[in-house]
Amino acid sequence: MKNIIIASTSTIHESGYLEYILEDLKSFFSNAKEILFIPFARPGGMSHDDYTANARKAFAKINKNIVGLHTYNDKVSAVKNAQAIFVGGGNTFVLTNQLYKNNLIDALKQAVNNGTPYLGTSAGSNICGLTIKTTNDMPIVYPSSFNALGFVPFNINPHYLDPDTTSTHMGETRETRIKEFHNFNTQPVIGLREGSWLEVNNKSIILKGKLTARIFEYNKTPYEITPETEINDLK
Amino acid sequence: MKNIIIASTSTIHESGYLEYILEDLKSFFSNAKEILFIPFARPGGMSHDDYTANARKAFAKINKNIVGLHTYNDKVSAVKNAQAIFVGGGNTFVLTNQLYKNNLIDALKQAVNNGTPYLGTSAGSNICGLTIKTTNDMPIVYPSSFNALGFVPFNINPHYLDPDTTSTHMGETRETRIKEFHNFNTQPVIGLREGSWLEVNNKSIILKGKLTARIFEYNKTPYEITPETEINDLK
Repeated sequence: MKNIIIASTSTIHESGYLEYILEDLKSFFSNAKEILFIPFARPGGMSHDDYTANARKAFAKINKNIVGLHTYNDKVSAVKNAQAIFVGGGNTFVLTNQLYKNNLIDALKQAVNNGTPYLGTSAGSNICGLTIKTTNDMPIVYPSSFNALGFVPFNINPHYLDPDTTSTHMGETRETRIKEFHNFNTQPVIGLREGSWLEVNNKSIILKGKLTARIFEYNKTPYEITPETEINDLK
Repeated sequence: MKNIIIASTSTIHESGYLEYILEDLKSFFSNAKEILFIPFARPGGMSHDDYTANARKAFAKINKNIVGLHTYNDKVSAVKNAQAIFVGGGNTFVLTNQLYKNNLIDALKQAVNNGTPYLGTSAGSNICGLTIKTTNDMPIVYPSSFNALGFVPFNINPHYLDPDTTSTHMGETRETRIKEFHNFNTQPVIGLREGSWLEVNNKSIILKGKLTARIFEYNKTPYEITPETEINDLK
């Protein structure tokens, strides 16, 4: 029954918020008039209200109402009763921390596993994996767990970046970081470049967008998959 | 009594391991024949033995013996009795996790506050701050706390990188990440560029190396400090 879009980013270079994916979202959310927006990741520390206003502006273009989860007293019920859910990007630790503090992990799992359409971008995509251990974000708060929603049986690395061969910087590349991850964890990781997303439809998981994605499996050489590839067996 | 070097990186571009700072380390470690190396951060997942061998090779050039902490059964005593300590870079979460698991936090605090010379590079520098919440590393393991050694009353951001104004990538810049940190934390952060280090001598904290460093204080515009600046009052 799952119906999920796991997008690398909300915004691609020289394009408006969600603009590159808006046509797809129109059909994805065709049965929803109102979308519950979870603004907890607060990009750049933006307020919940301001962030919700941004999302509202983008979704007005496809005639969807947006309501922020922070405006509900009973947030668990709001998730359970949502017609559709959108979790925006920002800081994955802040987002995860808020989801645990508000007892929303189980509610989200239940709603999405029962078919409530879910769109995640960036941090909102990170939490669709098994854990948030492949986020790129700074750990600015300490959540009670790194375990995530597990909508797919692997981890997500959004905003995936290829190594910059011209760089003189000695910090780790993304690929090195994911290799380090596999010294302590065995699940696969998908590096989603900006402009790519995964479309999850019950048991089917398909790469969408124009770019290839990079798959990192434990003890294997990383490899690329092309758009429209099904990765149902990746686990 | 504190005697600490907090270095942004072990290695600068087109230079060998610790080469840029080796002359300074010679006088810093002048009273130690043997240095206890803590290899727990395991860069690229390297084994403790291999990582220790790397450090041994570099320190042989200034006639210091290196012994790896992982070779001791009683690690707490090894830290307490060390002539000098070097904590190498790698993954800050892995390092912090191991320090907590081996009950080494208090032993390190005690030894270093009593005057045992301590050199940290990268992850080994991150843990000198109040918390590891300004690390750049991927959270590949879940440590029991983000609290660090607190040798200085602020946070460290090693490998500090200026925003790349030519980038089309939509991931956050380092400055944006630290700004987000200050939405949830009030302590200052020092962004140490590769090749810079802090020299801590009891109550004196001085920026060393050829580059300026960037200071981020809560609710203030970030600013640069020049080499040889004392930042004893930053907190």
